[in-house]
Amino acid sequence: MPRIPARFARLMAIALIAACGFALAGGPALADNDGAFKYRQSVMKALAGHMGAAVGIIKGQVDLKGQLAAHADAIAGIGKMAKDIFPKGSNVADSAALPAIWEKPDEFAKVVAAFEGASAKFATVASGGDMQAAAAAFGDLGKTCGGCHQDYRKKN
Amino acid sequence: MPRIPARFARLMAIALIAACGFALAGGPALADNDGAFKYRQSVMKALAGHMGAAVGIIKGQVDLKGQLAAHADAIAGIGKMAKDIFPKGSNVADSAALPAIWEKPDEFAKVVAAFEGASAKFATVASGGDMQAAAAAFGDLGKTCGGCHQDYRKKN
Repeated sequence: MPRIPARFARLMAIALIAACGFALAGGPALADNDGAFKYRQSVMKALAGHMGAAVGIIKGQVDLKGQLAAHADAIAGIGKMAKDIFPKGSNVADSAALPAIWEKPDEFAKVVAAFEGASAKFATVASGGDMQAAAAAFGDLGKTCGGCHQDYRKKN
Repeated sequence: MPRIPARFARLMAIALIAACGFALAGGPALADNDGAFKYRQSVMKALAGHMGAAVGIIKGQVDLKGQLAAHADAIAGIGKMAKDIFPKGSNVADSAALPAIWEKPDEFAKVVAAFEGASAKFATVASGGDMQAAAAAFGDLGKTCGGCHQDYRKKN
């Protein structure tokens, strides 16, 4: 994994504190496209965090094998959410979601289902404790990331 | 929550793709302080993502109440991990972890235990489906973030 720049780390920390501190600030807002976009960003951030943590365990950068199953469970939880976090209209200005998501809904549904299936498989295997099998299932899961990021997301 | 800048969103996306793509690249590395630091960053990133997503549901910015329990479960999973992700020596150059973590281990353990307890409580309440109760438990959880970020983390 590339080194995470300090500026990024600071932004992560700010976002974490903001998420905690703003928990009860303000009243309820109406669900809208911007809310859906921000929610999706948060879910993807959680996914990236768990994937990064799983990489660290699988590559032996930390000796915390006992924590892999919890990351895998969380990823599988996100796998189940994925199909519901792309409501039409949520490709607001800052969003990298491409119109193809809504123009080809059946094809998009297939790649999302592939991610969901691979995440469930990874969780099952990770709970078994066989690290080699878990690494293989994680590799399969990783390939499904590209299914969406290749064709349905603006390039960076 | 403050608006997430586009640059941050891009960095998040890059980290996500890197986490996926680098899954099987390279051989295993020895666990070390830098690995422990990067792992902790990933875990905190996952936590921030889930907290942000929970805020979105609780504040009604998205109508996805059925997804709250999964975020709460993931947060509780991280709550259980927290005491093991601050090994001595892992306050490497980019880390914002303060020496107080290792100088006052008993006091640090207390604030980490408070986070773990509040995260478990939030998961229990969120699984019940009562949104008002869940919001209150989330508020209590949010307060425990400050327990660590106030005294054991460099200010941004």
